[in-house]
Amino acid sequence: MPRISATKEAILAAALELGALHGISGTTMDEVSERAGVAKGSVYYNFSSKDRLFEELLTAGVSSLSSALRNARLSAPGFAGIEAMVAAMLALIAGNRALAKLMAAEIFRTDRPWQVSMAVLRREALSEFEAGLAPLVPAGTPRGSLPLMAAGIFGATLMGGLEWLLFSPDTPAADVSAAILFTYSGKLDAGTPPTA
Amino acid sequence: MPRISATKEAILAAALELGALHGISGTTMDEVSERAGVAKGSVYYNFSSKDRLFEELLTAGVSSLSSALRNARLSAPGFAGIEAMVAAMLALIAGNRALAKLMAAEIFRTDRPWQVSMAVLRREALSEFEAGLAPLVPAGTPRGSLPLMAAGIFGATLMGGLEWLLFSPDTPAADVSAAILFTYSGKLDAGTPPTA
Repeated sequence: MPRISATKEAILAAALELGALHGISGTTMDEVSERAGVAKGSVYYNFSSKDRLFEELLTAGVSSLSSALRNARLSAPGFAGIEAMVAAMLALIAGNRALAKLMAAEIFRTDRPWQVSMAVLRREALSEFEAGLAPLVPAGTPRGSLPLMAAGIFGATLMGGLEWLLFSPDTPAADVSAAILFTYSGKLDAGTPPTA
Repeated sequence: MPRISATKEAILAAALELGALHGISGTTMDEVSERAGVAKGSVYYNFSSKDRLFEELLTAGVSSLSSALRNARLSAPGFAGIEAMVAAMLALIAGNRALAKLMAAEIFRTDRPWQVSMAVLRREALSEFEAGLAPLVPAGTPRGSLPLMAAGIFGATLMGGLEWLLFSPDTPAADVSAAILFTYSGKLDAGTPPTA
């Protein structure tokens, strides 16, 4: 059974807090060591560099997201699976706001040492939305449209989720989910202003 | 008639290129001066600090986005206005990929000296989507849902647009728009796998 190192966990938590606050470039290993209450030598023993430390933090985050999306997708057939994915992603964002903010800022950067592993994982997360969407689009839909739709739903959930946490944290999660999902209902395109 | 300074433009263009490549923290005023082919004194004469330089770059970007969204919204009534806004935003992203990437990475950061002006402008851009959505949602919709829906459509367009430029730049803009808008058609929620 792999031993979970409390030291490693403390280092990752400190890096996350500092990274969300000051950005990755604005965070030093000295500050991480101080915030974690762990000797600097021990920080470097667990993570050979700041880059490795943040790479592990971010890839673990995207990896959790992929698993959660996969489980949600498999939990219900058809559009209910998409609804479950949106809800699962919002729950993850709410559960770890600092990580969600850090991931949102990193997800499209191409100047990081970890950009390749992030791109692979990002693709993995998006492919869960693609897999959920594939049976729902008309047969004639161009293949290239699926990744764009998947990115759209992913982006809507991410941006809606961050909007929620930053500007209306008291709104119940179910209402946030309902608001985002309402845009997919086709009711916006009713043509005339609807009545109650 | 205000004189448009070629020097100022060269500095902003250099800052944008470097910022998109190395991040804002990874960019120095020395590098900006070198890339722009402008003396360092002149860089500081036009922008008192690196923070002011990037603040001007980013706020000008969000401000252009707001105007484009507003024009698009007013160009067509009802859902056609939303369609026009999605298309206008995609056109802006395609027209200035470096700025779109930089803005995507900055839009939810709260550790920047310019966070207040960015938040105000971000709100302005989102409020265009809100204004477009307001007449389209059912009368009983909670007031708090509109900003979340607006953030969702904004996020879908941003993420879909970046996905497009990074991974399928040969797809025509109209197809990207169509893919994102299809998710709002209600057809995903058809219940059973549709036939051609």
